[in-house]
Amino acid sequence: MVITEKIYEKSLKLHKKYKGKISVIPKCPVKKLSDFNYWYTPGVASPCKEIYKDIDKIFDYTNKWNFVAIVSDGSRVLGLGDIGPYAGLPVMEGKALIFKYLGGVDAFPIMLDTKDPEKIVEVIKIISPTFGGINLEDIEQPKCFYVLDRLKNEIKIPVWHDDQQGTATVTLAGLINALKIVNKKIEEVKIVILGAGAASIAIARLLVKYSADIGKIIMIDSKGILHPDREDIRLKKNIYKEKWYMCVNSNKERIKGSLSEAIKNADVLIAASRPGPGVIKKEDIKKMSYGAIVFAEANPIPEIWPHEAKQAGAKIVATGRSDFSNQINNSLCFPGIFRGVLDVKATTITDEMCISAAEAIAKFAQKKSISEDYIIPSMNEWEVYLDIAVEVGIKAVEQGVAINKKVSKKYLYKKAKEIILKARRDIELLNN
Amino acid sequence: MVITEKIYEKSLKLHKKYKGKISVIPKCPVKKLSDFNYWYTPGVASPCKEIYKDIDKIFDYTNKWNFVAIVSDGSRVLGLGDIGPYAGLPVMEGKALIFKYLGGVDAFPIMLDTKDPEKIVEVIKIISPTFGGINLEDIEQPKCFYVLDRLKNEIKIPVWHDDQQGTATVTLAGLINALKIVNKKIEEVKIVILGAGAASIAIARLLVKYSADIGKIIMIDSKGILHPDREDIRLKKNIYKEKWYMCVNSNKERIKGSLSEAIKNADVLIAASRPGPGVIKKEDIKKMSYGAIVFAEANPIPEIWPHEAKQAGAKIVATGRSDFSNQINNSLCFPGIFRGVLDVKATTITDEMCISAAEAIAKFAQKKSISEDYIIPSMNEWEVYLDIAVEVGIKAVEQGVAINKKVSKKYLYKKAKEIILKARRDIELLNN
Repeated sequence: MVITEKIYEKSLKLHKKYKGKISVIPKCPVKKLSDFNYWYTPGVASPCKEIYKDIDKIFDYTNKWNFVAIVSDGSRVLGLGDIGPYAGLPVMEGKALIFKYLGGVDAFPIMLDTKDPEKIVEVIKIISPTFGGINLEDIEQPKCFYVLDRLKNEIKIPVWHDDQQGTATVTLAGLINALKIVNKKIEEVKIVILGAGAASIAIARLLVKYSADIGKIIMIDSKGILHPDREDIRLKKNIYKEKWYMCVNSNKERIKGSLSEAIKNADVLIAASRPGPGVIKKEDIKKMSYGAIVFAEANPIPEIWPHEAKQAGAKIVATGRSDFSNQINNSLCFPGIFRGVLDVKATTITDEMCISAAEAIAKFAQKKSISEDYIIPSMNEWEVYLDIAVEVGIKAVEQGVAINKKVSKKYLYKKAKEIILKARRDIELLNN
Repeated sequence: MVITEKIYEKSLKLHKKYKGKISVIPKCPVKKLSDFNYWYTPGVASPCKEIYKDIDKIFDYTNKWNFVAIVSDGSRVLGLGDIGPYAGLPVMEGKALIFKYLGGVDAFPIMLDTKDPEKIVEVIKIISPTFGGINLEDIEQPKCFYVLDRLKNEIKIPVWHDDQQGTATVTLAGLINALKIVNKKIEEVKIVILGAGAASIAIARLLVKYSADIGKIIMIDSKGILHPDREDIRLKKNIYKEKWYMCVNSNKERIKGSLSEAIKNADVLIAASRPGPGVIKKEDIKKMSYGAIVFAEANPIPEIWPHEAKQAGAKIVATGRSDFSNQINNSLCFPGIFRGVLDVKATTITDEMCISAAEAIAKFAQKKSISEDYIIPSMNEWEVYLDIAVEVGIKAVEQGVAINKKVSKKYLYKKAKEIILKARRDIELLNN
C-alpha cells in the first residue's frame, strides 16, 4: 500500500457514492405485514413482560447480546486531532464495518456533542440499556482514562477504550513473540516507549501487568524523558495522574534527556507517537542492544521506515501498516475480544482478559511458526479471532465476571465461528 | 387476527429463536481487508476533513441522512405501561423493523435509563450528531409534550413523537374521508374525544389546526368531561398545560358529566382510551347524530366492537386492527413521513407537514374510491408511503424548513421508491 493522494481521492468518491457505510436491517424474516403481529404489537408484549419479570432475559429476546456502541466525542480522531463529533462519524462507521466483518458484532456509532467527561459518563450510562458493550473511541487523554475508569465501575456491561486497551493488547501480542525470537525475557528487558499519550501509557501498564519491570521502562513525551523531576507534569499531576505515575515509577536509573539518551542499550523500542518518517533516526536504533526490537506504530507513516531500522541493526521491526511484515493493529484484537465477552456476557474486560487475548494471538502465530517477519498473524488469518474470543471468554468465566458460566472452549469456538461466518455471508449477499 | 394466547406464545418463541430483530451491517462492499484502506484508515481521513470544513457534508459522506433514533424511556409502552427501558427494547426493535420495511429508514433503538425530562432532552441533544431524525416513542405525558417541544426548538433535525403526531395524522387522514362520505364539514361537526392522554390531545390539536371548531370538541378523561370547572386539572395546570388548555377552550357549551352526556348529537367519536370491549356502549352510539363516525382506536381490543357500533347506528367505524376494515395505525404514516423529511433534509416536522401527510393518505384512498369500509388505505398498499413522502417533502420545502430545496415531486417519488424497494430486497436477501 502506497499512501498517495489517490487513496484519499478514491475514499472520498466511495464515501459519496455509498453515502455512508452501515445500515440497520431486520435479521428476522419479514415477508408480509401480518408478521408484525409477532414482531410488533400485539405479540411483542410477551417478550416485554418476560424481561420486565427478569431483566436478564433481555439477552434472550433482543439483540442487546450483540449490540456495541462505538462512542466518541471526536476529540482525538486518528491522526486528525480534535475534529469533533460530526467530522468523526466516518471513522466510527468504518469501525462498525470492522466490528461486523471481523467479529460479527452489531456495532453502532454514537457521536457525542459534548467534551465534558462528566456528561460523557452520564450519557453513556443513560443509553446503556440497549447495548451489550461499549467501545470508547478517539477520546483524548486524560479524559479517556477518567471516562473508562468510571464506566468500568458504574455499568455492568464491558467498557473498552480501543486506543488504550486495544493498542496495548496487540503490542503485547507482538512483543511476546518478538522476545521469544531474540530469546529475551520480558522481566529483564529495557523498554523505551516513545510517546506518552493514552496508547503509550496503556501499553506500559499492560506490559507491567504481564511482568515487565516498570523500572526498566523509559517513557518519552514531546519534552523528553519522564522522571520525577519533570516539574511540568508534576504541576498537572492531579489531571495527568497516569502520566505522573509513570514519572515516579518508571526509569529507575533516572535518566534525563531525549530519545538518544534513553535508547542506549535498550532491548525494545515501542513508538506510538507521531507520523514519520524521521521521528526515530537510524543513529538512535544503532545505540540499542543486540537483537533490538522496534515497534514503530504511528499511522499512516511509521516513525522510522522498517528498512532503515533494519539497516541500523534492528532484528525485528513491526509497524501499523499492512504492507510491511508484522502489522500491529488494534483491529487484530478488538473484534475477537468483543466476540468473546459478548458470548459469555462478561460484565467487564479485565487486564487479565487482555493478556489472554494477547497470548492467544501470539500462540496462533507460534503454531504457524514465528520468525523475524512473522511475529503476529495478519488480519487475513481470520481464525485468530476465534482463538481470541475463546480465550477471552474462558478467562472471563475463570475470573467470575461472566454471566454465561457454563461454556466450554469448543462451544465458544463454534459459536464465534458461526456468527462471524454468518456476518461475512450477509455482507456478501447484500453487496453483490 | 384473533388475539389469543397463541400469538403471544408464538411471538415469544420467535423472539427467542432470533434473539432480537435487528442488526447493523455494512451497506458498502467489503470483500477483502484492503477495502478498509478506503473505508477506514488511512482513506477515511478525507471525508472527515471535508465534513470538518463544511458540517453539512456529513449528509453526503455518512449514513446520517438515513439514521433515525427511536428513543424511549419505556415509561408508557403500548398497553403495558411503565415497564422501563429494558423491557421496552423489544418494542423499539420492532419499530425499527417497521421503519425499514415500510420506509427504508435505518432506525436504531436508544433506550434511556432515566425518567427525568431534563436529562432526556439533554441526552438526545448530545447524541444527535449521528442521526438525521429523532422518533420519540412510548414516553408518558405530560413529559412527552415538554420533551418534544424543547427538542423541536433546540436541535436542527426533525423530532417526532409518534404517539402524538403519528396517531393524530392517521386519525385526521381517516376523518377527512369519513366526513366526505357522510357529507359533513369538519368546521361544523361535533367531535367527542374519549381519552385525554398524549394521543388524544395531539388529535384534538391537529384537528383544530385542520379547521375543526375547538368549541365543538368535547374531551373526556377517566373522571369525566373536560371543562373549566375541573378543579382537579386546574390544580395541576402548570404540569398538565395541554390538558388544561383543552378544559378552557373546548366544550363551549360547558357540558358536564360522562360520555353518555357528551355523546348526544355528536357527529364524530374518537376514542384512544383503553382496551375494550365495553368501554363504549351501544347506548352511547345510539345517541349520536345521523351518519355517526366512530374511531375506536385502542389496542389490542377496540373500545367497542365494530359490529356493535354499526348495530347501534354508526355509519363508519374504524379501529386500530388490521382484521377489520379501516385500520387507523401510526405505521401508515410515520415511515412515509420520515422518508419525506429525510429525503429533503427537513430540520423539523411542522403541523402543516402532518396535515399534508394526512391529505396524501386520504387522497390515495380517494383515487381507489372510498366507501364506508375503505376510508383509509391498508399498510399493504405500500405506494401510499411514496405519496406521503412526496407531499411531506414538498411541504417542508414550501415552508422553508428543508435543506434540500431543489426537489421535484417526481424526484422525491423516485428516490423514495428506490430506497424502500431496496430495503425490501435486502430484507428478503438476508432472510431466505
